[in-house]
Order: sequence, then C-alpha cells, then structure tokens
Amino acid sequence: MGGDGGSDLALEALPIALSADPALHCLCVGTSPTLGRIQSLPSSLRQRIETLPSESVLASDVSAAQAIRHGQTSSLAIAMKALAEDHADALVSAGSTVGLMALSRQLLGMLPGIERPALMASLPTLEAPVWVLDLGANVQVDARRLLEFAQLGSVAVEIVTGHAPRIGLLNIGSEPGKGPDMLREAARLIDAEPTLDYAGFVEGDQVFSGKVDLVVCDGFAGNILLKSAEGAVRLTLGTLRAALQGSFATRLLKGRLRQAHDSLDPARHNGAPMLGVRGTVIKSHGSASQQGLAQAIDLAARQARGGLVKQLETRLWSAE
Amino acid sequence: MGGDGGSDLALEALPIALSADPALHCLCVGTSPTLGRIQSLPSSLRQRIETLPSESVLASDVSAAQAIRHGQTSSLAIAMKALAEDHADALVSAGSTVGLMALSRQLLGMLPGIERPALMASLPTLEAPVWVLDLGANVQVDARRLLEFAQLGSVAVEIVTGHAPRIGLLNIGSEPGKGPDMLREAARLIDAEPTLDYAGFVEGDQVFSGKVDLVVCDGFAGNILLKSAEGAVRLTLGTLRAALQGSFATRLLKGRLRQAHDSLDPARHNGAPMLGVRGTVIKSHGSASQQGLAQAIDLAARQARGGLVKQLETRLWSAE
Repeated sequence: MGGDGGSDLALEALPIALSADPALHCLCVGTSPTLGRIQSLPSSLRQRIETLPSESVLASDVSAAQAIRHGQTSSLAIAMKALAEDHADALVSAGSTVGLMALSRQLLGMLPGIERPALMASLPTLEAPVWVLDLGANVQVDARRLLEFAQLGSVAVEIVTGHAPRIGLLNIGSEPGKGPDMLREAARLIDAEPTLDYAGFVEGDQVFSGKVDLVVCDGFAGNILLKSAEGAVRLTLGTLRAALQGSFATRLLKGRLRQAHDSLDPARHNGAPMLGVRGTVIKSHGSASQQGLAQAIDLAARQARGGLVKQLETRLWSAE
Repeated sequence: MGGDGGSDLALEALPIALSADPALHCLCVGTSPTLGRIQSLPSSLRQRIETLPSESVLASDVSAAQAIRHGQTSSLAIAMKALAEDHADALVSAGSTVGLMALSRQLLGMLPGIERPALMASLPTLEAPVWVLDLGANVQVDARRLLEFAQLGSVAVEIVTGHAPRIGLLNIGSEPGKGPDMLREAARLIDAEPTLDYAGFVEGDQVFSGKVDLVVCDGFAGNILLKSAEGAVRLTLGTLRAALQGSFATRLLKGRLRQAHDSLDPARHNGAPMLGVRGTVIKSHGSASQQGLAQAIDLAARQARGGLVKQLETRLWSAE
C-alpha cells in the first residue's frame, strides 16, 4: 500500500515478479478494495497469490511511536505479524522506513546482541554493484556497532553473490592511520574477525570503483555518500542532456543513451535489506518503478531461500 | 614546486594567469634551477614576475610536525614568510595540504577565536557553483565550530560572487527535527546570526541542485560528500563513454561531449581557500591542470583584492 506509486504500482509489480520466478508465492496485504483488484490478473498467476485484508494503512510520515501505538491494524503490521508467525518467509514494503523499523523491532524482535536494525542498499559501480550499510537511523555509533554492521552485511551479501564480500570501512583516507580513533578501532575489530574479509579503509570515490563489495559506515556518512552520489549522477546526466539536445546525431544514439541511463538508475538497484531483525525484511524505495519493486521482491525471495536469519543467528552466536 | 605536475605545471600556469589578468604580479618561490626556467617566458610577462629561491621542497607526504621542524627552508615556508611580511598579498600552493595547514598556522597565525584552518572548495551544480566547507582536518567539531565555518565561508563567498550566500547545513534530512543534536544546535546558532543568510538543512543530493550557495559541514562529512560526488561523476561518464563508443554519431557529438565533460571537470572548480589563518591562502588540487592552477591563482588575486582577511577580522571581532 505504501510508496509514491501506492497499490497501483504494487499491482503492476506483482505479475512481473511472479512471472520471473515460477516458485514464488505472494501474500498480499492491503485494504479490501485493493485486494479485489487482484482478480483482474491472469488466473495462472492468481494461483500463487494469497491475500490478507487490513483495516488501515500507515501514513508515509508516521513516527515510530505512532506506528506502534496506532498502527497495529495497518497493512504493514498485519504483514509483519504474518512474517513473525511464519505465514510468510520475507516481507517487502515501499512504505515509511520509520514505520518499517519500528514495527519490525516490535513484532519480529532483534537478533542476539543487536540493538537497532541497519539498512543496507546497493549502488552501481563500473563492475559489480557495491553494498553499503548503514543507511538507516544509526547516526552515532561506536566501533563494535560497525563490526556488527560488517557481520550482518557480510552474510546478506554472500547470499546474493555466492561469495564472502571484501569489506571496506568508509573513511576520509585509505592509509591505516587516517580518520577518527573510532574508525581505527573498528578496523582492528573487523580485521581480527576470521569470518570477515577486511580490505581496509575506502574513500568516497573508491566506493564506485569496485574495489570492495561491501562498505561499512554509520548511518550519517552512509546517507551523505548515497545522496551525494544521487545528486552527482543527476547533475552529470542533466549536463550531458543539455549538451546533446537538438542534434540529429543524438537521436541516433537514443537507444544507447537510454541503456547507459538505465544501468545507473536507482530502480535497478532497488531493495534495501533491513538487517538485525528476526526476519527477512526488504525496504523498497518509495519512488521505485514497477520493475524496481519486482526486483525488491526477488531480493526478498533470494534472502529467504538463502536462510538469511538462520545464518545471521549462527554467525552472531559464534561471535559472542 | 608541489602537486602531481610539480614546477613544470606551475611554469605553464604562470603565463595563463598573467595574460588573463594584466594587474597581476607573481612572486615565484622555488629551487634555483626551476626559477631559472622563468627566463624562457616572454619578457612582457617577465616584467610582472619576481622570484625568491628556496633551498628545499616539502615532501608530498610530510607530517605537520616534520613540516614545522624540518620545513623552514622549503619553498612553502619561504613563500609563507613573504606573505606574513606583506611581500605578497596571497599564497597559492599545489603541495601537501598537511604542510600548508601546519606552516600557515605557525607563520601567519590564526584569526581571533579560530582554532584550526578550514578548507573550502566549490562544486558544480546545474546553476552557479556551490561552495562547501570544511573539507580539511576538522573531523570532529561542535556547533560553535560550524557557526565559525559559516562566518568564514560567508565572507569568502561574498567576495567571489558579490552577494551574501544562502547557507545550508549538511544533514541527512531537510526537516528541522532531523539529524544529531549538535547539528540542530548549529542550525540555531547560524540562524540567530544577523549577518548570515541561513536557508536550513540540505541533504547530499540537494547540494548539487543549486538550492544554496554555501554548504557547511564537518571535515569528515565534507570529504565523503566531495569524494562520493567525484566517484559518481566518473562512474556516470565512464558508463556513457562505454555505451557511446564505436558509433559514427558519437564522433559527430565529440565537441558537445567534451564541453559537457569540461563543465563537470574538477579543474574548472579548482582553488580551495584555507580560511581562518591571518592571510589569503589557496590550496590548488594536486592533480589540477595548468588551467586549473591558473584559476586558483585568479581566485587568490580576487580574495586578496576583496580584502578577505580584513573583512574576516571585522566580522569575527563584531561576533565576539
């Protein structure tokens, strides 16, 4: 029900995701009028769709306290309870991140030793995508928290790529002596952990070079990194668009330009795992396209099939 | 003598800067063999060049302590002393930022109430360039320090643009309640200062939209912002280059593509004022082109002519 495109977009993403993955079953949670519109989908797909009605929907600007106090009959809370009670294996939402974080903490609970969920997203590079966490609400963190992020992210990325990611710690220089004391302490902790493949500090520009597969940082630095890159990509494309406008040759290159544009599109990289909660939860970007939302659903299925939560529990247990 | 291009690049930048600005005089400080090569420049330009020999050059990886203990005969120290003794009005260096910061603190001293220099640089936007500070070594700061940055940057930007800049505070949300307590406190301080035009919090992507003229942040966030944007621009241009390669139409657009590329080139935005020291000091990027270095020299001349240091002293005095 959430996100800029609301239930219309979800109803378009649903057949894309089901057609792409014949083993996928979807449990759709929303208000009754929306769920009724699922009847218009082909019956071959409808066989793999179940529905669960909700009385209300969370507002996009809901606070954590409001979500918990007044959101228990919302589509998100109903879906979260279905996940908690094993009626679903994973949850995807394009709604409020604050609401998603609050209800997942309350209804799923946290993994051992983890205080708050961390949000991980992928960014394009010239090579394979790079994953970055935290992009959530963990603004001021200590070194142990960054070690936690590395452990959570490493397991989640390995499920997607099939190999343990090279981990970089975001800093303002790549030499070991650079940056605040806390980051140097975090580097020692991550480097000392035998299950983690630590590759050293990475600077903001190196994130996009494909040097590492997973970048660990606090939520403030992660947000600055992500938003700055979004702004710079938009500026670059806008500058090129203005420069190429009105030329016949540009029209000849339309297909190639579209292809390049698409490969940088955030929707291609949609689907942010919320890690640390006792369940597979994927945040879809509020402005993602139907293809983007379908990709978030696919990521959720892959994380659930890879046994994300069980693997995280084992890893965190052995680290204690 | 410093920077990737060393004295060769400086000798190419020198005639560009002198030709562009007939009122400009340059005092070149370096080793004798380098200064000797100035003889090969046209005599019309040589009339506006003075030289000052130095025995040594600072290493590019010099520490602050080394610069102060062993760097007193270096070209940078000799140039800094010329600035301190009013034999020059401004200083430009492409050498070590650490050395520049250490020697400027030692030989020029700081403005009243300022502890450490702040480094300010400009970035391209779809409209006028935006200035960002701090990009230097001020990694952990308090709210009063951010107010200082706003005051230093506001004066320096007004000299360049002719009007008081709209100031944004870099944060992970643009609503007033967002981010760490320290940033909310800094927002109150900057907003309460009648000489400053405070426009609110800005997110990483908004920096590139032209919403504000000056972005204030700590050196850690500033470095992440700048480097992330560099990496994202490089990724976008690289992706487009790969997509357009090998097509005849691309060859027709070569001039337009070059123009777009140039407008995003960091060399176009070269020249970072080091603010808070008792002198006009401009850091040129180590990898800047000769045009970039000439632009840093031009910026230095404009800041000196605008009376940067006197204006900062007046402003900081009245704020106490």
